[in-house]
Amino acid sequence: MASPLKIAIAGLGTVGAGVVKLLADNGELLAQRCGRPLVVTAVSARDKGRKRGVDLGRAKWFDDAAALAAEADAEIVLELIGGSDGIARRVCEIAIARGRSVVTANKALLAVHGTALARAAEEKDVSLCYEAAVAGGIPVIKALREGLAANRILRIYGILNGTCNYILTQMRRTGRPFAEVLAEAQKLGYAEADPSFDVDGIDAAHKLAILAGLAFGAAVNFAGVHIEGIRHIAPLDLEFAKELGYRLKLLGIARMTDHGIEQRVHPCLVPIETPIAAVEDVFNAVVAEGNFAGRTVFEGRGAGAGPTASAVVADVVDLARGRRTPTFGVPVSALALPPVSPMERRIGAYYIRLMVVDRPGVIADVTAALRDENVSLESMLQRGRSPDEMVPVVLTTHDTEEAGMNRALRRIQALNAVLEPPRAIRIENL
Amino acid sequence: MASPLKIAIAGLGTVGAGVVKLLADNGELLAQRCGRPLVVTAVSARDKGRKRGVDLGRAKWFDDAAALAAEADAEIVLELIGGSDGIARRVCEIAIARGRSVVTANKALLAVHGTALARAAEEKDVSLCYEAAVAGGIPVIKALREGLAANRILRIYGILNGTCNYILTQMRRTGRPFAEVLAEAQKLGYAEADPSFDVDGIDAAHKLAILAGLAFGAAVNFAGVHIEGIRHIAPLDLEFAKELGYRLKLLGIARMTDHGIEQRVHPCLVPIETPIAAVEDVFNAVVAEGNFAGRTVFEGRGAGAGPTASAVVADVVDLARGRRTPTFGVPVSALALPPVSPMERRIGAYYIRLMVVDRPGVIADVTAALRDENVSLESMLQRGRSPDEMVPVVLTTHDTEEAGMNRALRRIQALNAVLEPPRAIRIENL
Repeated sequence: MASPLKIAIAGLGTVGAGVVKLLADNGELLAQRCGRPLVVTAVSARDKGRKRGVDLGRAKWFDDAAALAAEADAEIVLELIGGSDGIARRVCEIAIARGRSVVTANKALLAVHGTALARAAEEKDVSLCYEAAVAGGIPVIKALREGLAANRILRIYGILNGTCNYILTQMRRTGRPFAEVLAEAQKLGYAEADPSFDVDGIDAAHKLAILAGLAFGAAVNFAGVHIEGIRHIAPLDLEFAKELGYRLKLLGIARMTDHGIEQRVHPCLVPIETPIAAVEDVFNAVVAEGNFAGRTVFEGRGAGAGPTASAVVADVVDLARGRRTPTFGVPVSALALPPVSPMERRIGAYYIRLMVVDRPGVIADVTAALRDENVSLESMLQRGRSPDEMVPVVLTTHDTEEAGMNRALRRIQALNAVLEPPRAIRIENL
Repeated sequence: MASPLKIAIAGLGTVGAGVVKLLADNGELLAQRCGRPLVVTAVSARDKGRKRGVDLGRAKWFDDAAALAAEADAEIVLELIGGSDGIARRVCEIAIARGRSVVTANKALLAVHGTALARAAEEKDVSLCYEAAVAGGIPVIKALREGLAANRILRIYGILNGTCNYILTQMRRTGRPFAEVLAEAQKLGYAEADPSFDVDGIDAAHKLAILAGLAFGAAVNFAGVHIEGIRHIAPLDLEFAKELGYRLKLLGIARMTDHGIEQRVHPCLVPIETPIAAVEDVFNAVVAEGNFAGRTVFEGRGAGAGPTASAVVADVVDLARGRRTPTFGVPVSALALPPVSPMERRIGAYYIRLMVVDRPGVIADVTAALRDENVSLESMLQRGRSPDEMVPVVLTTHDTEEAGMNRALRRIQALNAVLEPPRAIRIENL
């Protein structure tokens, strides 16, 4: 058998400790699959004394991750620290500069600095691998970059944040409001103390930007992602969605259009019978539409020590086997720089919930506002009657351009009988 | 850019013509992703004059596929003829012997001669690729061999035959019997004139044997697959399944047990809320359970020119990029030869439909037979009453060993009031 592959690990949190455990538990199997043993020769973390429940063996300890990246006796460096800048970025830059391949689980870093890092790796003829950065244990980066490499990708979308999917699933099942379910998710460890990265859609947007870059051969453009989170979703919307035959999901969607690249993360209503509607709780899913393969769905665990370690070590196995691919599927010089298609160009259907005074003429005013902006109504729902009280009214539209929809919503909001800002949720007939 | 990769194609049926079309349509994109152009330099098929709707360019024509495999000016040979023996096998053997890598879509060949071909490829230091052999456009071979390579696979199962899934879906939706729906599927081109390969489970078994070999690092053992098809499924069973909260699917299931490798293809009842239950029509799905990644689901189109061509060319891209992996993930010398776990060892629940005379005492006799073999009843369903007429009675059991279940079924069949052989369908609580 060939000589061992020496690995340095920067970061021993949940993911780092998971990787060490995986390398130990599946060591023999991995040696067979890699054609050589995998050995951790160096590790680095903030707190040397912390109990991690894993055996670090004879790995050399570094207090400074940057020093590990520069000096460790290792061919590859795993960056498992996180964060788009600071030490995580430095670890990757230093390791690449020293001619070491890098495996990272860091979606923020890839989303913001992916192209620059890919260029650096290409110049040094080393690999930059990031299977773990998107959708955890689901090997979707490999699927897009290699498994579906024969296809022009027409559209890619998915449930990319398990915390949001868990919260929306629980809200639907229990009828409880967002804040309550979030608090519970925090207690269970499914949401962070500061949940904004997840619930405001930023984490999903990081992942979408990476997927879109890879799918369309374009430079990763996180700044070009339109982002809305799930804080404003009310149990009422989940009920109406059900009644209308939809399920509410936070999706990331990317597509190449005539106006440029469309990248958006926002709550969507999806038909109940579409595969992604059935993806519940903390599960993630990614759907790729290829011009020859058609629609392919990948579903699994998007986070957690085990799934993330599985993805990190899959990259290590590739490196051990000498399997190499350009970071985003094509050389950096070939990456396109498409303009961003503005959200106002989006064409699709809408769900609109209004809180109105229950009195004659209100619906006539609302529908007149829609007509004036050429928005065509598909259905109208009002449950119960409470004369002169506030009641919810739900409208769904036929396909329309978002610019016109926005103008209609401004007209509607200005009506006296409309007591709260309208809630508009995009319907995606996937 | 590097020199072109020269490709010889043996077989220009649906798949072969699909590959030629894909290489033309996506040529520019592929050249970027491969780092070099792909060029078809030689083709072979039975009938030179046939219209295929694709441009064969300057490819050299061979009347004899074996001659193409031996003499074509090509680095790789695509075997797209089909069949476990005969010319398809010879093409692969000759190409490998001449030091060319082979890409094949041929599940029958891989299932029967996979280990021998893998050994030959290894000896010649060439690749044998077969992404298209299982689940068409879903890149599940790559997912298992590389994407999930960090995992010990605990179980793998899936809907591996689109024809059967289409027939079962239509039977459920329309309430029509097997023979009628099959005839319609044949008219639509979803089933062959001789449908036995599909509806008797053989095609699914070929694919399962390949998946199991890869997942468990074992020599492919098609002869060790227990196979039952869907001919005996009645609309009545689909109705009862629905009533009990299940959906009926033809699954292939493989697992490594204490008694050896378990490989089986047969109709199953799966809980309606499990992801695979929602996979309908001609779609395929594969579920892999890894010891770190957990459950991962892959779904997509399992057949057809486009999806199959997508998989074939994905393998070509790997070869163009120099990405290589042992045929079954580990060297042939490391492949295990586990014994086959007998079906009688299967432990699980059962659905049993009896056609009995509707009179007092029948159910008591049936339940006594179950009790005598230690089979514990979970539920009993009888719809309607027709004293002294034949009525269906459905029982479901708790987990029990198949050996005992079979003995109980023999006892039940011997009862006077039981008018037809009992229909037993395994329940898989996935």
